[in-house]
Amino acid sequence: MTPTVLVLDADPPPRLGRLTGRARIVHTDAAHLAERLPAADVLLVWDFTSHAVREAWPGDGPRPRWVHTASAGVDHLMCPELAASDTVVTNARGVFDQPVAEYVAALVLAVAKDLPRTLELQRERTWRHREGRRVAGTRACVVGSGPIGRATARTLKALGVTTALVGRVPRTGVHGPADLDRLIARADWVVAAAPLTGQTYRMFDAHRFGVMQPSAFFVNVGRGGLVDEEALARALARRWIAGAALDVFAAEPLPADSPLWELPGLIVSPHMSGDTAGWRDELGVQFVASYERWAAGRPLPNVVDKTRGYVPGH
Amino acid sequence: MTPTVLVLDADPPPRLGRLTGRARIVHTDAAHLAERLPAADVLLVWDFTSHAVREAWPGDGPRPRWVHTASAGVDHLMCPELAASDTVVTNARGVFDQPVAEYVAALVLAVAKDLPRTLELQRERTWRHREGRRVAGTRACVVGSGPIGRATARTLKALGVTTALVGRVPRTGVHGPADLDRLIARADWVVAAAPLTGQTYRMFDAHRFGVMQPSAFFVNVGRGGLVDEEALARALARRWIAGAALDVFAAEPLPADSPLWELPGLIVSPHMSGDTAGWRDELGVQFVASYERWAAGRPLPNVVDKTRGYVPGH
Repeated sequence: MTPTVLVLDADPPPRLGRLTGRARIVHTDAAHLAERLPAADVLLVWDFTSHAVREAWPGDGPRPRWVHTASAGVDHLMCPELAASDTVVTNARGVFDQPVAEYVAALVLAVAKDLPRTLELQRERTWRHREGRRVAGTRACVVGSGPIGRATARTLKALGVTTALVGRVPRTGVHGPADLDRLIARADWVVAAAPLTGQTYRMFDAHRFGVMQPSAFFVNVGRGGLVDEEALARALARRWIAGAALDVFAAEPLPADSPLWELPGLIVSPHMSGDTAGWRDELGVQFVASYERWAAGRPLPNVVDKTRGYVPGH
Repeated sequence: MTPTVLVLDADPPPRLGRLTGRARIVHTDAAHLAERLPAADVLLVWDFTSHAVREAWPGDGPRPRWVHTASAGVDHLMCPELAASDTVVTNARGVFDQPVAEYVAALVLAVAKDLPRTLELQRERTWRHREGRRVAGTRACVVGSGPIGRATARTLKALGVTTALVGRVPRTGVHGPADLDRLIARADWVVAAAPLTGQTYRMFDAHRFGVMQPSAFFVNVGRGGLVDEEALARALARRWIAGAALDVFAAEPLPADSPLWELPGLIVSPHMSGDTAGWRDELGVQFVASYERWAAGRPLPNVVDKTRGYVPGH
């Protein structure tokens, strides 16, 4: 029997046409997810902004054997019932690495060269010479040692930035959590690129911002939940750190009345760091390739450790 | 007798105190330059925005034996009489290479990630997801094969950008002028980092902007005179190219009523690409080191070929 692939989407994913005859593709919105889940063999969480899976997951009842999310993080879909089940969860590991790394480099360089101020002064037709900073020779601490964190560290190193990587478990080239405070205390750039898990929830709090240098710049390209946003706002207001850029937020889209929009020293971007022209295509191609392996009974790539909340290993 | 060092400055240079007892330091503004030049052994052009040397140079009369400019370019001081004289001209080669390279990388990445638009949308408190571009795999053409051009090419290559370098004379790793149109025709990023000479004056004209791709982004970190600004304005208005960033202009400071300030797609910055915290210090240190060699009768570094208008050689 042709397996049923249930797609939770807003816009239909590209490339699934390749599965014609090999899969029965059923689209759903969040409202109809719960009623359609039991009949599905596979769930493709294409709308990675939705938290609907957590509420709709059918406990002990009939359920998909495989859930794939078109995202690096899985925090939006994990729930105890899914974690306890024998359903395999996979993610889009690999698609976002280089784009996110370049995005972080763009922020670091733009801030070092005072580009946001240059654009402001241009609007005022004001010629005001300023001194930038050299990026080569500065220090970064990248928190998160998955493919995105590692690509970010590689790119910063290529720019001459001395970069330390922090992960859950110390290993060659990766510091453990015990080194975190020491490393962020001397970093010019602190980059959050970790998955959101029980351990990482609000790990960037008043204590951590207090440990950083007054000249430090903080970047979050991981998940909004990694940061205590109120603590960050206070740290910026009190000049504990020099500035920050958030691409992810506790609530997305960031509400129009959020004070974060106008916080001095904060750059707000709409969860776009990993998204480059062609990315939806890449995500579609990746799912099709995984589906072909699954249908052939072969092991799936990028299997998430449902307890830890990410794909473990190097 | 203690040699006289005449310093053309607006703000006094740092580090010259090291020459106490070994040089008689005399400061001058542009208005008094002509009357003081004949008595000077050395002229330090610290105010590199001034064109006063060209008018004040004392033809056949007594004149400094050495002129050093605290800049990479020498276009602001060269004149036929200085070129014909036996006075040695040196420049600040080496101080600006890495800063300018990083500045170009900052622009390339910021544009690829649509950062200027992100900052605009933030002011409007608008969450609007967009797709950036991957920088790795794009193509750049850097025009100018001196230390600044080479450092820029190295930095772009480190980001995965396929980068061609164009110089006056083809050699290993450097294309000659004959390849220029072919290379800019397929470049995503065209970077002007050449000295201003008779050959390079307005080399970026309507023809060159017409050859570039509609998606191309043009950056000028060389000299304003490299670009026909009216042709660039038309090229942007007609969408011949996607955008541009100018750090240097035919007239500096750019007048408040210049149409360039508000040209859609153009980023205007105040001739700051090479200037990072500590740069004035570095320039002072560099002059002091050169002075010590000169006073000892040893050969000077960074001697400019006065006919070509730059320091030749690799």
